[in-house]
Amino acid sequence: MRGKFSGFLLVPQIIFIVLYGVFVQYDVQAGPRNASDTTSSEHFDKLYPMFQDVHVMIFIGFGFLMTFLRRYGFGSVGFNFMLAAFVIQWTILIRGCLDLEDIKDGKININLETFLNADFACGAVLISFGAVLGVLGPIQLIVMAILEVVFYSVNEFVIAHKFQISDIGGSMVIHTFGAYFGLAVSLVHWRPELKDAHPKEESVYHSDLFAMIGTLFLWLYWPSFNGAPAAGTIIGERAVINTLFSLAAAGVSAFAMSSIVDKSGKISMVHVQNATLAGGVAAGAVANLKIGPLGATLLGSSSGILSVLGYAYITPAILQHMNIHDTCGVHNLHGMPGVLSGVAAVIIAKATSPTTYTTLEANLQLAGLAVTLGISIIGGLLTGLVLKAPFLGSVKHQDLFDDRPYWNVSLYRD
Amino acid sequence: MRGKFSGFLLVPQIIFIVLYGVFVQYDVQAGPRNASDTTSSEHFDKLYPMFQDVHVMIFIGFGFLMTFLRRYGFGSVGFNFMLAAFVIQWTILIRGCLDLEDIKDGKININLETFLNADFACGAVLISFGAVLGVLGPIQLIVMAILEVVFYSVNEFVIAHKFQISDIGGSMVIHTFGAYFGLAVSLVHWRPELKDAHPKEESVYHSDLFAMIGTLFLWLYWPSFNGAPAAGTIIGERAVINTLFSLAAAGVSAFAMSSIVDKSGKISMVHVQNATLAGGVAAGAVANLKIGPLGATLLGSSSGILSVLGYAYITPAILQHMNIHDTCGVHNLHGMPGVLSGVAAVIIAKATSPTTYTTLEANLQLAGLAVTLGISIIGGLLTGLVLKAPFLGSVKHQDLFDDRPYWNVSLYRD
Amino acid sequence: MRGKFSGFLLVPQIIFIVLYGVFVQYDVQAGPRNASDTTSSEHFDKLYPMFQDVHVMIFIGFGFLMTFLRRYGFGSVGFNFMLAAFVIQWTILIRGCLDLEDIKDGKININLETFLNADFACGAVLISFGAVLGVLGPIQLIVMAILEVVFYSVNEFVIAHKFQISDIGGSMVIHTFGAYFGLAVSLVHWRPELKDAHPKEESVYHSDLFAMIGTLFLWLYWPSFNGAPAAGTIIGERAVINTLFSLAAAGVSAFAMSSIVDKSGKISMVHVQNATLAGGVAAGAVANLKIGPLGATLLGSSSGILSVLGYAYITPAILQHMNIHDTCGVHNLHGMPGVLSGVAAVIIAKATSPTTYTTLEANLQLAGLAVTLGISIIGGLLTGLVLKAPFLGSVKHQDLFDDRPYWNVSLYRD
Repeated sequence: MRGKFSGFLLVPQIIFIVLYGVFVQYDVQAGPRNASDTTSSEHFDKLYPMFQDVHVMIFIGFGFLMTFLRRYGFGSVGFNFMLAAFVIQWTILIRGCLDLEDIKDGKININLETFLNADFACGAVLISFGAVLGVLGPIQLIVMAILEVVFYSVNEFVIAHKFQISDIGGSMVIHTFGAYFGLAVSLVHWRPELKDAHPKEESVYHSDLFAMIGTLFLWLYWPSFNGAPAAGTIIGERAVINTLFSLAAAGVSAFAMSSIVDKSGKISMVHVQNATLAGGVAAGAVANLKIGPLGATLLGSSSGILSVLGYAYITPAILQHMNIHDTCGVHNLHGMPGVLSGVAAVIIAKATSPTTYTTLEANLQLAGLAVTLGISIIGGLLTGLVLKAPFLGSVKHQDLFDDRPYWNVSLYRD
Repeated sequence: MRGKFSGFLLVPQIIFIVLYGVFVQYDVQAGPRNASDTTSSEHFDKLYPMFQDVHVMIFIGFGFLMTFLRRYGFGSVGFNFMLAAFVIQWTILIRGCLDLEDIKDGKININLETFLNADFACGAVLISFGAVLGVLGPIQLIVMAILEVVFYSVNEFVIAHKFQISDIGGSMVIHTFGAYFGLAVSLVHWRPELKDAHPKEESVYHSDLFAMIGTLFLWLYWPSFNGAPAAGTIIGERAVINTLFSLAAAGVSAFAMSSIVDKSGKISMVHVQNATLAGGVAAGAVANLKIGPLGATLLGSSSGILSVLGYAYITPAILQHMNIHDTCGVHNLHGMPGVLSGVAAVIIAKATSPTTYTTLEANLQLAGLAVTLGISIIGGLLTGLVLKAPFLGSVKHQDLFDDRPYWNVSLYRD
Repeated sequence: MRGKFSGFLLVPQIIFIVLYGVFVQYDVQAGPRNASDTTSSEHFDKLYPMFQDVHVMIFIGFGFLMTFLRRYGFGSVGFNFMLAAFVIQWTILIRGCLDLEDIKDGKININLETFLNADFACGAVLISFGAVLGVLGPIQLIVMAILEVVFYSVNEFVIAHKFQISDIGGSMVIHTFGAYFGLAVSLVHWRPELKDAHPKEESVYHSDLFAMIGTLFLWLYWPSFNGAPAAGTIIGERAVINTLFSLAAAGVSAFAMSSIVDKSGKISMVHVQNATLAGGVAAGAVANLKIGPLGATLLGSSSGILSVLGYAYITPAILQHMNIHDTCGVHNLHGMPGVLSGVAAVIIAKATSPTTYTTLEANLQLAGLAVTLGISIIGGLLTGLVLKAPFLGSVKHQDLFDDRPYWNVSLYRD
């Protein structure tokens, strides 16, 4: 894979540098600004701690969450890192093209919010990565990321920019999109052997503990994820508080359900690692609204229950009957809770129209969910087909869920 | 344990949701507020980064600190997570009942500080959890948490609300209380087999490294723990600086003492993992006072030394002669340093009365320490007795310090 | 090592406490201040989140980054912790002596920035520690830290205080200094056996994953490292944004190069763990300048490539031909990228003099780099000689890269 893999990274990297030179400049905040005004912008100061929380979620949270596989730890945390560093740079350009960035004098103006939005795009790509973890090779992953960012940005442009739907935490834009895109890619890359339990598709004791590092940082910093787009406003404050409630309720409910769905009543780490987080996704589209402690805990509890049921019954059914393999169960953590959140937003918009929302707004909120599902699934199918190109290197069966084909692994102990 | 365990989580969770609907509302900060004022509250912006640090301490800090046991990693980080998500929701209601929350129109008003105080209650419960780690089963732990939060809040009501003692970092309210409550529970649940070394009550190489994740995040974010209650004030700033000094001194002293108490002069991870943190506890009750760099480093050094001596000599003595098993040595990390901090606060209050403190205040400061010890020990004994109820499921001897009775564990390697 | 090791920690600790009592006091910010002004200082509020990020980098970042060795995990994260807690206290005094701290009434005035600067000194010492990881014993490390802080502060005094060079992120003051100081120490402690591969100088699967915790927190919080000295100003904001660009570019480039330098095209964890971070170092000396997205990504990419080339070709050459063993490859992560950053600063200063910079300033910028190399190498050589003193305990050959001589290690599994 030597020259090819490097080329797929270095050629875009050189293009990024060149395009940055031509089309990207500091926002006035980091740039010249009035010489007498040397203090940082108030918005920067309020956003920065929340941004760093989101940043940790993307690189530590997603990265370690996926290390649960006993022989794919390097790929999980490593390719997660590689993809995110790549996607940050690529997203800035694509969002700039679509006028989603702040454009002045024909140039993209960069400030801290640019990077926050780039991190959000990473979220979608890394969710899709979770669906095909251990099944796609690194070159395929890079190409997937390149294409997904385009579809992601188009969807964002349509539903956030044009429809102006409510989705502060990106339950639709990020989570629903990333999950169904990944599942669609996975469908195209179906191979019958995935139906049987693969000897390497399992965890060991310590790999499950590594994954908990990811889980907990995601759980802890999710209020920042949902609140950061409105940092420094009362909306952001409310988003934080709603998300705190929702996550606590999802945590308790996921533990309870994990025991219920097991025939001997034991708890499963896969549920603790994932379903506890569904509360963050479920709060996403409505975190800015006055859903109250009641609404937030109800939503959180429901999503935790739904997510465990997904792991126990829906993922195996999708595998057996729909030929879709979902390594991390992103359908249960991001897909269904994302749709739940989107539906909750529609219900609230419908129920409060035409006073708070206009009837058009309420309808657009529903349309936004439909558009997201449409673009993600179609985009994922198309991308999946592209990734079939032989020169992108598909993974041999014996190399599934294994670091050794791509990494220098000194000593394996697990 | 299937139905029972789930019931002990889900029934309270449903009650939480219902009570939240009836009795809990947003504080004006996150709620309606003047329509023209859309900025977040200044207090929120200053508290949020410190709150997130405390949040990390509770879930990552306490959770991973306890993963040192080689076969109880899931229980450590998992039950820690479950208990904290549960206690956050429960504490809000209990503190509301006791008028410790902000009550308006008969409703509990929620803002970020509500969650900070809930995290502090988690701290106490998780300290007690540390005393009985691997010895109590999950249903017992949930019931313990339910009862402990009540005793904890009563104690807080008496000493913080009524006596108005100085305890910014909760050395008495949280650390002393949590430690002696847990030790009292442990006394009631004494079983003679605990006197002998249990083959599973030990660490392996990597479990000790996982524990260091917990240690270091606790050590790093402790200044926020002690400073957050006064975030945005000069008091909070001083609390941060005093705690930084105290922790650095405790760190160095704990390393030195660890070598001294070992007959071959080697360092023990248990001391590094725990005694280095004693400086945070020891600073707690006086961190807001002008103890100066001298006072802070003196207190930190003393607590680090005291804590190592505790691990080396006092914990074994308590085990052999008082029939109290203390899995994590919470007496050394939270109990004694908490009392030390409380005594330091009494001495300062006595020494500076009647000028800075009135004589009454100085006496109440001492009374606060006594009340904390009284309520924690009596509360712990009563709670321990309740936990003896057979339907709460006690742990069989061969299942002590072992994840397998409660968790689906795929492959054990250690 | 019992009494000796403890003495080398406790005697200085007692001296610290005494000197703190005599010479150190709160800055007006944490101290008396006007009684009517009870809010925290605005600077504290803006610096604190960035300070905590830097704090995490020092203790978690550096500590876990070095745990990659399979049998030196306790020493890596443990001695890192011990040295940093020690150096924080020691640096405050030395910098105070050199007038680098805020002095009033003959006393050192302490505020949060004091601790930020102490953390920076830790950075230099821990980089040097990385060069001799597993080769020096704990007493030698303490003595090295004591001496290095003196040389470090002298160098800072000369180039930052006297020459007033531009080096916001400490690429020269911290990274270049720490790397070449450590390499000089390593040269003096050369032993021929180090030329051959040592059976314990390697990683295992999970030790590489532990190291990734360090890597990622370093990568994520590096923008705070480069921006914190100018927290709350537009300079700090620009430093954050430049560093974000540089790190992303270094990340992608390091992955690509890692595959290129491997004969079978596989990626190596050592490159992912280290070379991805070179972008933070490379941005350091110029992060405050208007290098633009182009400049930042170009610098980041170059440093990532340079760093991988260093690991692949330069470190082995230095080992074979110059008798310098560099356990963590600090020359590749801190040394060369630090010099690169320093040279970039010189070029910018030269190119923009005499308009933005005066010719003198541009020359001093170059002189600063030369002085740093001079003081670090001479200081390292002298310190290395001191560490040869027999009573400081050198490590026996069979004990190299092994925790067991210094730590109570229960069970080794790797």
